[in-house]
Amino acid sequence: MTANQDEPKNIKDLGKFGLIRHLTKQVKIRNEQTVSGIGDDAAVIDSPGNQLLVTTDLLLEGIHFDLMYTPLKHLGYKAVVIGISDVLAMNGFPTQVLISVGISQKFSLEQLEDLYEGINLACEKYQVDFAGGDTASSLTGLTINVTAVGTVVSEKKAGREGASVNEIICVTGDLGGAYMGLQLLEREKEVFKSAPGSQPDLSGYEYILERQLKPEARKDVIRYLNKVDVVPTSMIDVSDGLASDLLHLCHRSGLGCKIFQEKIPIHKNTEKMAGTFDIDLLTAALNGGRDYELLFTIPANDFDKLKEQEEINPIGHMTSPEFGCYMITTSDHEIELRSPGWDGFKKE
Amino acid sequence: MTANQDEPKNIKDLGKFGLIRHLTKQVKIRNEQTVSGIGDDAAVIDSPGNQLLVTTDLLLEGIHFDLMYTPLKHLGYKAVVIGISDVLAMNGFPTQVLISVGISQKFSLEQLEDLYEGINLACEKYQVDFAGGDTASSLTGLTINVTAVGTVVSEKKAGREGASVNEIICVTGDLGGAYMGLQLLEREKEVFKSAPGSQPDLSGYEYILERQLKPEARKDVIRYLNKVDVVPTSMIDVSDGLASDLLHLCHRSGLGCKIFQEKIPIHKNTEKMAGTFDIDLLTAALNGGRDYELLFTIPANDFDKLKEQEEINPIGHMTSPEFGCYMITTSDHEIELRSPGWDGFKKE
Repeated sequence: MTANQDEPKNIKDLGKFGLIRHLTKQVKIRNEQTVSGIGDDAAVIDSPGNQLLVTTDLLLEGIHFDLMYTPLKHLGYKAVVIGISDVLAMNGFPTQVLISVGISQKFSLEQLEDLYEGINLACEKYQVDFAGGDTASSLTGLTINVTAVGTVVSEKKAGREGASVNEIICVTGDLGGAYMGLQLLEREKEVFKSAPGSQPDLSGYEYILERQLKPEARKDVIRYLNKVDVVPTSMIDVSDGLASDLLHLCHRSGLGCKIFQEKIPIHKNTEKMAGTFDIDLLTAALNGGRDYELLFTIPANDFDKLKEQEEINPIGHMTSPEFGCYMITTSDHEIELRSPGWDGFKKE
Repeated sequence: MTANQDEPKNIKDLGKFGLIRHLTKQVKIRNEQTVSGIGDDAAVIDSPGNQLLVTTDLLLEGIHFDLMYTPLKHLGYKAVVIGISDVLAMNGFPTQVLISVGISQKFSLEQLEDLYEGINLACEKYQVDFAGGDTASSLTGLTINVTAVGTVVSEKKAGREGASVNEIICVTGDLGGAYMGLQLLEREKEVFKSAPGSQPDLSGYEYILERQLKPEARKDVIRYLNKVDVVPTSMIDVSDGLASDLLHLCHRSGLGCKIFQEKIPIHKNTEKMAGTFDIDLLTAALNGGRDYELLFTIPANDFDKLKEQEEINPIGHMTSPEFGCYMITTSDHEIELRSPGWDGFKKE
């Protein structure tokens, strides 16, 4: 956004409601299900014939993002992606987001404009409506809560339970990139802190940085599954890490699983980063998380329909529960899947 | 909740997902529209024939609540009330809430149990389902975001615009109580800080304390309006204060208004507090906010249908825009309505 002389220069002059009007004036309504959006006590949504999906995610400064290396435009974009990824993970299509933002006095109007520009950009890309929210003062940094709404045809819904023995486990895209991007950013932050003014050396790692700072949600994959008429028997998005999220599917379906290390998709940029900085690639792939890829199970005879979709990778199959949950390494060892994500509270 | 020896004693032992399971094990699904709730990527909601309402509110420690005098059980209850009040203010009926909670290490498992007990209590009282949420670590205190979902019959929807000249302005219950309750609690906090160990003197003020700490949402009024077949032409809940919220209705409907001081409902407890501590009662009633009463307009010929409902008070009428927005005082002066709420950002 470019400022002109008539535009307000700061948050105080606008006041709370003026700020909301200013920040949301670019918002467009794209979906006819959005009967009305921002500006009333609640968004009004029409969904004739379909079931509605509603999900909510909280993002807190210092826990989920570090503003030292996270551009606010990227953060706004990412917030929308995180929200709609949960809708997609139910095999639904996202239609609206509502976003609450708590801001402290350290933020300028320009920074908030950047945040909302990112939100609008993601809404445009994924064709969802920014349909409401809340704006509040905060004593301590930035708080974002994103509520995403979507629709799903009842018979096509994919929850976390529903997988059967021998069904194929698929994951989209590649894993570990967001984790490696975070390691790189944290490393450069330390360098910068010890030598302020130094320029970060991030060249050659654009892919993993984008995975961390501006991830995408797999609407393309859900659209493809829909087109070829494949309904996952269970599905989740990879937010806590492959191991943790696969264990969710196993536990909820009452099954075990066997996946193969050689099948886990890793981007060459992720691999390069692991090699250069001696970071365990397997940890990144199994426990990294925040890739927002989709992890799902399908009956074996559905797999032929997906063979042409290069973004969908088979990585193993579901087993009887007594076999447990294992990965077979490239050196043919069995590693039991464990979930550091389950103990995320301890670390944070 | 009473602990027994098998129950976990702290958050660390539970881990994130164990904590979520532990805190939500009491959750019951009451509405058949809630196809599935907590435990998947998104809540699944059915709403055949009706439009859906979705609203979101952010509550931050130090801004929206002070844990020095806010019991966590009350806070959980209040969070639900704040969320569903927005749904009621559209003339809809709340059906689900999704609640995100960000907690820092200072909180014990018992405190979180209290918070969730309050949430469940409000869900039971208002017959809504606790259908999802997010739990995250926080570096700084407590963060709560409540998303409320409800349904509305399309033709009965009441937004902020739609009022006409000469329509009657009504407000439910009484105003200023929550504000006075807050003044009392803040006063006792200062007393306590200067003389630790002193017991707060709150007797005789139970009503205003409850208005602040454990407000209720006016589902009873929406049910009544529905029963007598009165549809407000515009409606809002009183969260920022009567003046601010009435100005919203006026601006959005392109009208002015005239209300009468003598008609504004004030509880005797609120009046007593104002007298004892020399606080301007008019400020409390006009700008106090957080009462979560409903403010709405109805055609004059609908008013007869509401006469028996003592909770609904006529306070004035809508006028042409050129007359502006005024209150006539008991001494027959005209005061232009202004909205400190519009500048809430400056003060906070």
